[in-house]
Amino acid sequence: MFTDPVDCYAYSYDNSRNFRPPIAVVFPLTAEEVQAVVRLCNEHKVPLVPRGRGTGTAGGSVPEQGGVALSLERMNRILSIDPDNRMAIVEPGVLNQELQDAIRPQGFFWPPDPSSAPYCSVGGNLATCAAGPHAVKYGVARDHILGLKAVTGSGDLIKTGCYTTKGVVGYDLTRLIVGSEGTLAVIIEATLKLTPLPRAVGGLTAQYRDTTSCAHAIAAIMAQSFVPSALEFLDNNALNLIRNRHPGMLPEDMRALLMIEVDGSEQEIAEARAAILKACEVDGLIEAKEAHDTKSLWAARKALSPLLRDIAPKKINEDVAVPVSRLPELLGGIEKLATQYQVANVNFGHAGNGNIHVNLLVNPDNPEEMQRAEKCLDEVFSLVLGLDGTLSGEHGVGMAKRPFVDREIDAVTLDFMRNIKRTFDPANILNPGKLFPAVGH
Amino acid sequence: MFTDPVDCYAYSYDNSRNFRPPIAVVFPLTAEEVQAVVRLCNEHKVPLVPRGRGTGTAGGSVPEQGGVALSLERMNRILSIDPDNRMAIVEPGVLNQELQDAIRPQGFFWPPDPSSAPYCSVGGNLATCAAGPHAVKYGVARDHILGLKAVTGSGDLIKTGCYTTKGVVGYDLTRLIVGSEGTLAVIIEATLKLTPLPRAVGGLTAQYRDTTSCAHAIAAIMAQSFVPSALEFLDNNALNLIRNRHPGMLPEDMRALLMIEVDGSEQEIAEARAAILKACEVDGLIEAKEAHDTKSLWAARKALSPLLRDIAPKKINEDVAVPVSRLPELLGGIEKLATQYQVANVNFGHAGNGNIHVNLLVNPDNPEEMQRAEKCLDEVFSLVLGLDGTLSGEHGVGMAKRPFVDREIDAVTLDFMRNIKRTFDPANILNPGKLFPAVGH
Repeated sequence: MFTDPVDCYAYSYDNSRNFRPPIAVVFPLTAEEVQAVVRLCNEHKVPLVPRGRGTGTAGGSVPEQGGVALSLERMNRILSIDPDNRMAIVEPGVLNQELQDAIRPQGFFWPPDPSSAPYCSVGGNLATCAAGPHAVKYGVARDHILGLKAVTGSGDLIKTGCYTTKGVVGYDLTRLIVGSEGTLAVIIEATLKLTPLPRAVGGLTAQYRDTTSCAHAIAAIMAQSFVPSALEFLDNNALNLIRNRHPGMLPEDMRALLMIEVDGSEQEIAEARAAILKACEVDGLIEAKEAHDTKSLWAARKALSPLLRDIAPKKINEDVAVPVSRLPELLGGIEKLATQYQVANVNFGHAGNGNIHVNLLVNPDNPEEMQRAEKCLDEVFSLVLGLDGTLSGEHGVGMAKRPFVDREIDAVTLDFMRNIKRTFDPANILNPGKLFPAVGH
Repeated sequence: MFTDPVDCYAYSYDNSRNFRPPIAVVFPLTAEEVQAVVRLCNEHKVPLVPRGRGTGTAGGSVPEQGGVALSLERMNRILSIDPDNRMAIVEPGVLNQELQDAIRPQGFFWPPDPSSAPYCSVGGNLATCAAGPHAVKYGVARDHILGLKAVTGSGDLIKTGCYTTKGVVGYDLTRLIVGSEGTLAVIIEATLKLTPLPRAVGGLTAQYRDTTSCAHAIAAIMAQSFVPSALEFLDNNALNLIRNRHPGMLPEDMRALLMIEVDGSEQEIAEARAAILKACEVDGLIEAKEAHDTKSLWAARKALSPLLRDIAPKKINEDVAVPVSRLPELLGGIEKLATQYQVANVNFGHAGNGNIHVNLLVNPDNPEEMQRAEKCLDEVFSLVLGLDGTLSGEHGVGMAKRPFVDREIDAVTLDFMRNIKRTFDPANILNPGKLFPAVGH
């Protein structure tokens, strides 16, 4: 256990702009130890904030109300890999990449692939219902989980789901806990569904003269029947970040780029490639082509989030999603709002899911700029909700999106969620204050 | 509204052996009408049993405690089909087949495909988390739903999920309600995720000298990387039912049969067929071969459930699932138990999910036989749970599996489920008594 403020410091923040040190950090190794900590905190009404590796971007693992940080990083064993049944049982502290490395030799992968995969934990992936570029074909964390062991806010150990690919006995507590951001229970073990590695992978790129034409192409790609295994969009400001880092890599006249991956058998890839290239052909296309070596491009794409942090450490980082057919309206609308409010912004993301990372680059020491950015953000959210979208496709609510939740979820439905929270965590000790709008908001 | 006992009769049973007439049947057309009925029942503490088309096999829609049957059959509009976003919004009374017929011309299907598809409702499919032969590749109902509108036991209208393929704002109430068998809320609208139709479909059959060798082949097929789109198992007694109906269709020396479907591109089908034929080659194989015309065979497979009803109207119909690698132990164990207790049984089902329909053919007028069958069943469940299996892969708990639920789900976890039930349905009016073991059991 850490109680020295210097030691606690590293557990006071995540990859958001939020910071609040816990009074102590504990590192349980067993279910019993987790239960003991939870019961103690429950008894003394002390906030307890479960934490994977603190890579979230919404403040979900920040000990906002102080209390104890419950780091699951030492519960990091892969308990079993069962290739015959395509399952693995892991403790929550196993890193996403460690899992991938362990199952790849057996011919499998676990689809959630956030850009933090090398250093984020599977427990955190489940708590946030993480996704990533491959979600467009393979789905998100909730689609790749069969069962959980978890400790509720009352210190009870529950066992959810089953060890079979079908099962309908009792309520689906598994998916209730997945994505609940540590507010209902502490995940201490997970039975994961594994997916066979694709036989082969192919790449495409498509360059556009402007964002709107690119958005139309995205909608056209998703409206035909070959589902890409990744469909990533980068706007001109995102491309400029790459241009600055890798001069000469990208043509100057391109204002929007699609990076497309297809997988399957060679014939399937060939057929998908042909169909997708055809869908790419909208007005505004510069060139769409097979990408033979996409490694450097994907590396550049993966480096975008850290690059953004370098140039604007206090950027406002959003994660909205809309139905893909509404992407032209979304991206066009964001460009208009950014111009109107004179806010520098960089947009990129998982276009196949309509999931766009909207980054507003602001200087927090400039109150006037911050005010403009906040007004702009407010209108971005109105735009998103007006397009049948959601405020967060994969990052979660945490602290960051809390003020806006009740614009997406109505008061009656939110009350049912609050009642579920009370059922699992009667003393409100588990990650208190997260996920819900503030009372009275 | 029906109140005449003659009219109510048709709403007093499902496809199980259970029967109990409601005092009234109501046919709401709108959300407001559903809310009005729920509120009235809530106020007067009258049981209210939501009902699709009553095709369930576990008694889930039987008005066991009397009260009002809430038939959703007239809320049967397809509200929208959105091919660009691969979604459809439907009312709960739409038949599964009606939905398939509406989306097929646009190149889509909705994967849940119970054998009752022509006459079961989508609302019922969601309430039971229905599946069918194609679940082995495409998953179950909870994998093909994005959002719901539902009326809780308190008469509140809630709106869950979102109209995007990714979304992590708030708790996942969608999947909490899916599979809850009408005990939490009445589904009045569903946003469904559609799946592109496969490019092509191919068939295989594999004949075995005995069940055990066939079970080993199932495990081998599922351990290689090509996932069949269906993998159906029929034991010798199931084959005999088909033999009686279709003389000459099936060879006499075959004691177990696999019906295998693969889909995808032509090359993918060819590769999958080769890999699966190889996996079929275990000791005990008579012949594995491509099936050029599988229509009559699939028709025979589909007719099995009704055939069984004809020969044993009071059969005990189970729906267990185990990890596929444990199928040899399960099927071997069931054969042993059937011999030991001298109970005629027919086993078949969705072997790729380890999901076997175990049918004990009994005469309810023979108390001694019934006693033997019940002992046998008890041991079958112990066997299943000992093999990390579940009591129900797709039929649900309803009334039928209620006495056994607490052998699968521990008391602590069940209590959390009961608390969720109370949160959604404080007066316990929605399908009361279903899904949970009797209090004190």
